[in-house]
Amino acid sequence: MENPLKGVSYEKDFKDKGLATLGDSLANFIYSLALSSYTGKPTGGRVPNAAFAIALEMAGLREVIPRRTDKHGKGDIAEALLAYAWLQSKISVKEAVGILSHNFTDDVLHPYRNKEALGKAFGELFKVIKERLGL
Amino acid sequence: MENPLKGVSYEKDFKDKGLATLGDSLANFIYSLALSSYTGKPTGGRVPNAAFAIALEMAGLREVIPRRTDKHGKGDIAEALLAYAWLQSKISVKEAVGILSHNFTDDVLHPYRNKEALGKAFGELFKVIKERLGL
Repeated sequence: MENPLKGVSYEKDFKDKGLATLGDSLANFIYSLALSSYTGKPTGGRVPNAAFAIALEMAGLREVIPRRTDKHGKGDIAEALLAYAWLQSKISVKEAVGILSHNFTDDVLHPYRNKEALGKAFGELFKVIKERLGL
Repeated sequence: MENPLKGVSYEKDFKDKGLATLGDSLANFIYSLALSSYTGKPTGGRVPNAAFAIALEMAGLREVIPRRTDKHGKGDIAEALLAYAWLQSKISVKEAVGILSHNFTDDVLHPYRNKEALGKAFGELFKVIKERLGL
């Protein structure tokens, strides 16, 4: 997807609250599209912070997380990372949706196992982002 | 934006909960992009149901709202409409962001006046959607 945000300025700062806020809506949109694609029906949801924490761990992104960052803080960092990668055109919505839905299992629909399953799928997405951002 | 949801089936039912759920993440993403574009910095937020209620009224879409629908119900219908129009490729993310940011005023940043200002901007978007869906 073409980046529609020309003229928007930002720094490479994964603790930036603005990037995290934009990334929150981007992550939920990508997740909703991937879930709709996986189930074959329009649906959606919000990505829990626990899933982001698992994803960052899986992708070996522990270095971008300051010590003693709680789950909420990890969610913010993951969202900022995603927004930054998207703004830099390192990943498109379409590709991100493809990576997620390709890595989904039926556990993403499970009320208790969904955080772990979602974390694994986002982990695959963050592996790609990590490599393309040279982190 | 190319619709990445090939293979997803849905009906033209603006009371469909699945369409509303997908539309929720789509609306928040579009709003966040428009707000980032308007302010020149990454930012975002969620669209309040009150803004959707104003928007439907402004666009003359009262007929698609069943009697005695509350604000939350109006939000769901607006979200389903948006998702349906997007799935039908009647509106792209990019065009929707352009319509919103073009119709934003500084009141969208105001803590009390933002619902009204946001409702007006979404009203312009829903006018376009109404015409293209032949409603």
